[in-house]
Amino acid sequence: MDTSSRFRDLTVAQFVEVLASGEPVPGGGAAAAIAGSLGAALVAMVANLSVGRPRYAEHAALHARAIPAAQELVDRLLVLADEDAEAFAGYGTAMRLPRETDEERAVRAAAIREAALAATLSPLRTVEASLEVVALAEELAGRSNKNASSDLEVAALMSVAACRSAAANVYINLPSLGDEHRARELFERTEGMADAVERLASRTREQVRGGESRGPLPADPA
Amino acid sequence: MDTSSRFRDLTVAQFVEVLASGEPVPGGGAAAAIAGSLGAALVAMVANLSVGRPRYAEHAALHARAIPAAQELVDRLLVLADEDAEAFAGYGTAMRLPRETDEERAVRAAAIREAALAATLSPLRTVEASLEVVALAEELAGRSNKNASSDLEVAALMSVAACRSAAANVYINLPSLGDEHRARELFERTEGMADAVERLASRTREQVRGGESRGPLPADPA
Repeated sequence: MDTSSRFRDLTVAQFVEVLASGEPVPGGGAAAAIAGSLGAALVAMVANLSVGRPRYAEHAALHARAIPAAQELVDRLLVLADEDAEAFAGYGTAMRLPRETDEERAVRAAAIREAALAATLSPLRTVEASLEVVALAEELAGRSNKNASSDLEVAALMSVAACRSAAANVYINLPSLGDEHRARELFERTEGMADAVERLASRTREQVRGGESRGPLPADPA
Repeated sequence: MDTSSRFRDLTVAQFVEVLASGEPVPGGGAAAAIAGSLGAALVAMVANLSVGRPRYAEHAALHARAIPAAQELVDRLLVLADEDAEAFAGYGTAMRLPRETDEERAVRAAAIREAALAATLSPLRTVEASLEVVALAEELAGRSNKNASSDLEVAALMSVAACRSAAANVYINLPSLGDEHRARELFERTEGMADAVERLASRTREQVRGGESRGPLPADPA
């Protein structure tokens, strides 16, 4: 497929069709970002189902902040799906460079390192965005429309899947960076964020299942 | 939105837009099924990237079986996204029935019980389909194109998110069934499948991370 077209403009059926095809791109990295965008959309939905309701008036500032934040995350994750596919395709292009002469081999090795860095940073941004999504879901749990609370649990589950899927894509590219120090640093950053995502997802789930209301956050006075 | 239109025919951007809107439908149940379809598509991709390759010839029977099975699951999960939204909308319709007279209240109560059953069975089918997806991913791990093995890990993560999200939607509807025995039975069936999904996802991940090849399954002699 033409990876310069945007996945967001494909129908859902077309996107799963290109995902299922025997082309390596799009693959797990793009699927991770799309799953993250589903989570962000659910956070936006819950905030939209809460804003302006007298019963949740004390959380009006949170809802007003969450809606544009979640919308921005939906958009960012849809862009990341395209970026991930481009970065992955760039890696394939670098791998196919000629390697007959010493010079060609040096050029190819440098191109592979550069492509590996791009293919690492793109899923890293999906990890970061997933953390922002689940942080919003956790803030909204107990502070939003109770009839939609299970959607926050689903948003958290989508964030975990997006984050761990993107993290797996970070890890497979690290050995190709040709920079052990940088690889170690990126690994630790990714693991730290993945742990935070799991923790926030558990808290969201417990809050939703517990069913209790919470007071406003200090950042969002009623 | 008109829920009689199919989600598969919306663009990805349109689907996340209706998901993010302040309408309760589509919600977490539809997102769960779409995430499941991403997992099934990745299983199909890995099988497509493996079939016909001499290096994986001993697994040809598995690949030939996995491709149509994964494609059928992609399709089934896309249909389930629509069904879930319809069932959820039906529940809302039942809740809005008049309840002035005893007769109206009886009719409404029966309609709610019936709608709750439909809204339970639809995510239950998403749980079942997710289990089938991750079972295929686990079978392919160590028996398919190594360059795409991380995509099996992502497929397993998508199955877990789809299954646990759908399970959350089963559980919230059980109290409205008005049948404790049936609710208990459906709870245990769902929990049993969710445990199996988690177990198969862990095995897929361990197999992928270990990086070892496996021999053909007894069901798929080379």
